[in-house]
Amino acid sequence: MSNLMDAIGMIYAIFHEHAGPDKKLNKAEVVKLVRKELGKGDSGKAAESFFKTMDDDKDGFVDFNEFTTFVAASCILLNESLRSSQP
Amino acid sequence: MSNLMDAIGMIYAIFHEHAGPDKKLNKAEVVKLVRKELGKGDSGKAAESFFKTMDDDKDGFVDFNEFTTFVAASCILLNESLRSSQP
Repeated sequence: MSNLMDAIGMIYAIFHEHAGPDKKLNKAEVVKLVRKELGKGDSGKAAESFFKTMDDDKDGFVDFNEFTTFVAASCILLNESLRSSQP
Repeated sequence: MSNLMDAIGMIYAIFHEHAGPDKKLNKAEVVKLVRKELGKGDSGKAAESFFKTMDDDKDGFVDFNEFTTFVAASCILLNESLRSSQP
């Protein structure tokens, strides 16, 4: 499988690994995902801010589209930080 | 590295592998990327439509943000197609 299909498959698998049967992430599931995948969110405050950032429509859950938007924003942040550090 | 960081790193690497020093994808670079990563775009028509889909601001190039939006939309399409095929 190509790298891009790998990446897309990973994003899909990570979300559904943590979301469970209701296919949405509640706050506790976001905390677990962020801790495992990003090694962050140990403090309640960090977890809270990740959840607020992801839960775009403020319905108390993060659905797949909101998660994908978060991942896309993370890609853009990575790109900008790496570009600004280049000569 | 976590899966999510792997996926984000892959998306970054794939774009810059094909974009080259100007950090933008022209049509020929999109055709090469799509052919290599998605195994599609052999016909001129398919390549044209991929390029039109990605080049959101119609400036004749696909920048990193536009590419990330395309990848996010592909994730959402995958999610919807897999969900609709589940019982």
